[in-house]
Amino acid sequence: MAAQQGGGADLARLRRFNEQAVLTAVRTAGDRRVAEIAADTGLARASVEDVVRGLTERGWLAEQAPVAVGRGRPARRYRFRGEAGRLLGIDIGAYNIRAAVADLDGTVLASVRTASTPRSSRTRRLAALDAAVRDCLAAADTNAGDVWLTGVGTTGWVDRSGRVVLANAIPDWSGVDLPGHLAATLPGPVLVENDSKLAALAEQRRGAGRGVSDMVLLQAGRRTGIGLVIDGRLHRGAGGVAGDLSLLPTLKWESAVEFLRQCPLPPTGALAGNRIDAVLAAAGTGDPTATRAVRRYVRAMAGAAAAAVAIVDPVALVLAGSLARRCDVLLPPLVEELALLCLRPPEVRASTLGADAVALGGVCLAQDRLESHLADTDRPLAAPSAS
Amino acid sequence: MAAQQGGGADLARLRRFNEQAVLTAVRTAGDRRVAEIAADTGLARASVEDVVRGLTERGWLAEQAPVAVGRGRPARRYRFRGEAGRLLGIDIGAYNIRAAVADLDGTVLASVRTASTPRSSRTRRLAALDAAVRDCLAAADTNAGDVWLTGVGTTGWVDRSGRVVLANAIPDWSGVDLPGHLAATLPGPVLVENDSKLAALAEQRRGAGRGVSDMVLLQAGRRTGIGLVIDGRLHRGAGGVAGDLSLLPTLKWESAVEFLRQCPLPPTGALAGNRIDAVLAAAGTGDPTATRAVRRYVRAMAGAAAAAVAIVDPVALVLAGSLARRCDVLLPPLVEELALLCLRPPEVRASTLGADAVALGGVCLAQDRLESHLADTDRPLAAPSAS
Repeated sequence: MAAQQGGGADLARLRRFNEQAVLTAVRTAGDRRVAEIAADTGLARASVEDVVRGLTERGWLAEQAPVAVGRGRPARRYRFRGEAGRLLGIDIGAYNIRAAVADLDGTVLASVRTASTPRSSRTRRLAALDAAVRDCLAAADTNAGDVWLTGVGTTGWVDRSGRVVLANAIPDWSGVDLPGHLAATLPGPVLVENDSKLAALAEQRRGAGRGVSDMVLLQAGRRTGIGLVIDGRLHRGAGGVAGDLSLLPTLKWESAVEFLRQCPLPPTGALAGNRIDAVLAAAGTGDPTATRAVRRYVRAMAGAAAAAVAIVDPVALVLAGSLARRCDVLLPPLVEELALLCLRPPEVRASTLGADAVALGGVCLAQDRLESHLADTDRPLAAPSAS
Repeated sequence: MAAQQGGGADLARLRRFNEQAVLTAVRTAGDRRVAEIAADTGLARASVEDVVRGLTERGWLAEQAPVAVGRGRPARRYRFRGEAGRLLGIDIGAYNIRAAVADLDGTVLASVRTASTPRSSRTRRLAALDAAVRDCLAAADTNAGDVWLTGVGTTGWVDRSGRVVLANAIPDWSGVDLPGHLAATLPGPVLVENDSKLAALAEQRRGAGRGVSDMVLLQAGRRTGIGLVIDGRLHRGAGGVAGDLSLLPTLKWESAVEFLRQCPLPPTGALAGNRIDAVLAAAGTGDPTATRAVRRYVRAMAGAAAAAVAIVDPVALVLAGSLARRCDVLLPPLVEELALLCLRPPEVRASTLGADAVALGGVCLAQDRLESHLADTDRPLAAPSAS
């Protein structure tokens, strides 16, 4: 039998395979007894004990204080040592910069938000980014050196190296090298991805799309965007532009929000925060002009969303972005429009992560890199080196 | 170490993992020496020898006649025993029914084609299908009982059970139960899939898209269709309708071919086989009216293809279907249109499998099922039982 006669390379491969299965089982469940890990992974009890011992020695797992249940000696419980390091998630948009510090299992310890504007220069936006990172690390009582990995979401087309190739939403943003800029502050690797893609990743991992294998995320904000999860994984596309419909003339969806901006405000609407919020609020109270504007906005978005749905045929579509806080107003007409345009309309769900989705997606991206790091190393738990 | 202390379940899992790696290496390469298999798979030589012995005993591999190279005893070579069984691929379209008998490694032994028409009744089409299967088995000197698995491609929306949910191209076809019908003739499992999807699978495995991870197939025939390969796998979608753009009103692509049908025929064109062929032939000789019609046809198709490209961001787009035999005429304008509509235009390639793509896709589907069958069984090589 291969495992008995084979050389060291085969056994090392099997051990990694088993280690990763055990670590995933413990991390997903919070904490776990050996018998539970064996049931989760299909591994034999003796194998689990052996793997758990190795992972504990190397600092990935820690033994929990035992909880006595009934008589007899309580079974040992193990947990993932999330506190061993920190991850940083960042969202750089046209209007907001957000940052979140999390531990290695994704629990958010602190988050900050700072306002920006599309007219801000690249230099000022990068300075605001640095300030947000500094403030967030301080709020989480974390040194930059403790941040193992950073995941950044930003508007536009991002290539595999993390460079922003093209960003229409921020005039001065195309070409920016965020890993290069952040290297001055953060010693760990910096991963950059398009913001709608990271929102999709976050919603699929810990939000409205949890566990959904095929998902379309429709980002409804001052701009519109699409993020895709296919077969349980974030779909980037060969060049990183999967889901970007901006050049398709028949689908005019980027300008969809103009239907809301140009809607005449009802008298009471002036009370709301801004024009778009006011129109959504008025539609929520049944104002006919506002309701018509919302319908036209949703129809324009649905045309593009339906193209994504027709291509991917997802289990669910998640409505996210800043306007998704008014899902009470937007979801019913969206469901109606999709029913007309899709052979098999997906379940339509509201984002549960709200404005934090992109920064949380950055944390998820960092977690994924951490897992692949484990699979490639025999070393004790330690921060991956900068790439 | 897990592999040494673990129980039988872990070892069985490792053995399957190794067996599948060895079998894939041998099958892909044609035939292979132990040292080559070890290099391909990363397994230790002792493991490979052990796995090869087991697979040979169970009938999956056979030892090749040794070829002496230089001095010394020639190294033993092993090959996949493709001749141990047969696979059948079928294509049921509105105008043609095709069948191909292949051995287990996909080598085609015989193929047949029979004409049909969209106006044919379901009963007559099924009778023509049965005749095609009979003729193809006879041509390959094969009994129906030797066909381990059958993969069928047909027009329309096909659900996971193999039922045709909806087929616009053939009026009498919606609801047809092909696995049920073919069970009377073929004892092995029958898998059914949409025809554009199977064409995409075939081109990615053995045609123009060989080895391409993300690929869009554009089926250009009397009807238009899209098939997707994402991350190296056929993408079906949650309900089996991925790539079906038929309900999107802005993309009018299903009627694209009308631009060719309604083009006034040049005087010399009457010589060609049918009106569409005549227009394509005239465009090939530079006729301005035909060239304009081709441009409008391609533009209509490109609008839908660009939506698929924008969503998937593939490495390559493969133009296939019956009209793809005139890729000399169609490819240049298609490349131009996609350059206008795509942020990152993919490489555009012509199908290399031509009219056989769908039936070959059926063979590929059957091969995939055969591989997953190996992964689930300890039994000797034998036909999977009907599901």
